Amino acid sequence: MKRSSIIIDGRKIAANIIAEVERDLTDLKKKNIIPGLAVIIVGTNPASQIYVNRKREMAAKIGINSFVFAIDENASTNDVIEKIRQLNKDHNVHGVLVQLPLPDHVDTKAVINAIDPKKDVDGFTIENTGKLTLNQDGLAPCTPQGCLDLIKSVTPNIRGLNAVVIGRSNIVGRPMASILMHEDCTVTVVHSKTQNPEKITREADIIVAAAGVPKLVKKDWLKDGCIVIDVGISRIKEHGKEILVGDVDFEAALGIAKAITPVPGGVGPMTISYLLKNTLKAVYHSL
Amino acid sequence: MKRSSIIIDGRKIAANIIAEVERDLTDLKKKNIIPGLAVIIVGTNPASQIYVNRKREMAAKIGINSFVFAIDENASTNDVIEKIRQLNKDHNVHGVLVQLPLPDHVDTKAVINAIDPKKDVDGFTIENTGKLTLNQDGLAPCTPQGCLDLIKSVTPNIRGLNAVVIGRSNIVGRPMASILMHEDCTVTVVHSKTQNPEKITREADIIVAAAGVPKLVKKDWLKDGCIVIDVGISRIKEHGKEILVGDVDFEAALGIAKAITPVPGGVGPMTISYLLKNTLKAVYHSL
Repeated sequence: MKRSSIIIDGRKIAANIIAEVERDLTDLKKKNIIPGLAVIIVGTNPASQIYVNRKREMAAKIGINSFVFAIDENASTNDVIEKIRQLNKDHNVHGVLVQLPLPDHVDTKAVINAIDPKKDVDGFTIENTGKLTLNQDGLAPCTPQGCLDLIKSVTPNIRGLNAVVIGRSNIVGRPMASILMHEDCTVTVVHSKTQNPEKITREADIIVAAAGVPKLVKKDWLKDGCIVIDVGISRIKEHGKEILVGDVDFEAALGIAKAITPVPGGVGPMTISYLLKNTLKAVYHSL
Repeated sequence: MKRSSIIIDGRKIAANIIAEVERDLTDLKKKNIIPGLAVIIVGTNPASQIYVNRKREMAAKIGINSFVFAIDENASTNDVIEKIRQLNKDHNVHGVLVQLPLPDHVDTKAVINAIDPKKDVDGFTIENTGKLTLNQDGLAPCTPQGCLDLIKSVTPNIRGLNAVVIGRSNIVGRPMASILMHEDCTVTVVHSKTQNPEKITREADIIVAAAGVPKLVKKDWLKDGCIVIDVGISRIKEHGKEILVGDVDFEAALGIAKAITPVPGGVGPMTISYLLKNTLKAVYHSL
């Protein structure tokens, strides 16, 4: 008999985190503190503009001040860093993030590391990366933190489970591997140079797919009863119409996976919730 | 027919690195620069004293100044940090390391992070950890750097190979995993909470054993033709006499592994060579 897979409701779990953030906000308001989130966007990438608007709207909705700084496409690395330095000093700003990707002529590493690690709500600076690797308290990247919650919503204790992370980006794959290792999982990172990734994923109790390759993960990549977290989101044409798909062939995984996240409505809402949660954490660290 | 395993000669490969360091030293002497390495030892741990002496002797032998600061067992965290701050400012000192472990009452994290990352020749600070994780240039831990050389002495191109790291310490396991991932290996970290580690190591082309458990890795943990790097070194009693053994059952691995490091004479000499190499790197960064 085919297994009935749980569809993990990312919107609902994200809403719980937002509710938590709202409780903290109420406390802070009593102390006359309104958290501020500054978002820097360079150029006119349409996807970036959508993401930035979504962050601003969500912040506004719950009562976090948001400041968006749109910088010209032709700005230099130094121009961007200069803006960051101002924001680092600004007491009304508790979190600073730079929407990626930056134009090619801008030095992304230099820009990211100009952010005060205490305000680095994306968790991408060298310092916060080091802290996460060493399991010390800092600001960790939002998406992998959200993925962990989604996994734990199905199986709260994941100690000793085999986890496979597909993809090794600094934004998702690497920090995800660190987080799962701190949770006592046995972690394997597979990537574009891996031979026979499906042989490795077939041993996985937990799969986090973050390769950015539509429908990469097929039916025969999955072990019966695994948990599948799909970070990918790509727009493809299927049967003549445009659809959003993840890195996992969702239909094929149904009936095999114990639980799986949909795309959209899985990981996406978690990322933005953790951005607001990190902003609150930055406020508390500044007190 | 039984395979004839290569015994990797760590002493010889380490000597090549030392020769490289000596060439750089000759260049620096022409510029009247003599590198200085400061070693802090707190208390009277006999093993620590042996290690510190070995570092001092090797430095002296090739013409690096070494300064050993023996601090009283009862010194506070602040006492140790105060010493580090002096050394951070001292222009004759290019590398600073604190011999671990520290007495229980001393905050090891705080002490390590007091070291100027530019002088952190052990590569243990948050900043250098973050840089290694992100594959940015910094000072990386010595032992895993040495292990990579030992692996490459057998198989120069390891892209796409399956590597399993046993142990997840901040000193060896975690940085080793980062280094192997940057080399395009598919990396799995197994540890004390892993179920059936032997099932995972049996798929490994490369095994780095750094668990600190004598003879943990048995014959049936190994795939035919794998490369085995044994970081462990323990003193055990066998047949009535004390012997040094690694994390791998060396005799059992012979004939299965393509290549294996002996204990002693494998990883050990590499660690100290990389300490001196890192010291030189710190000098060049300071110029």
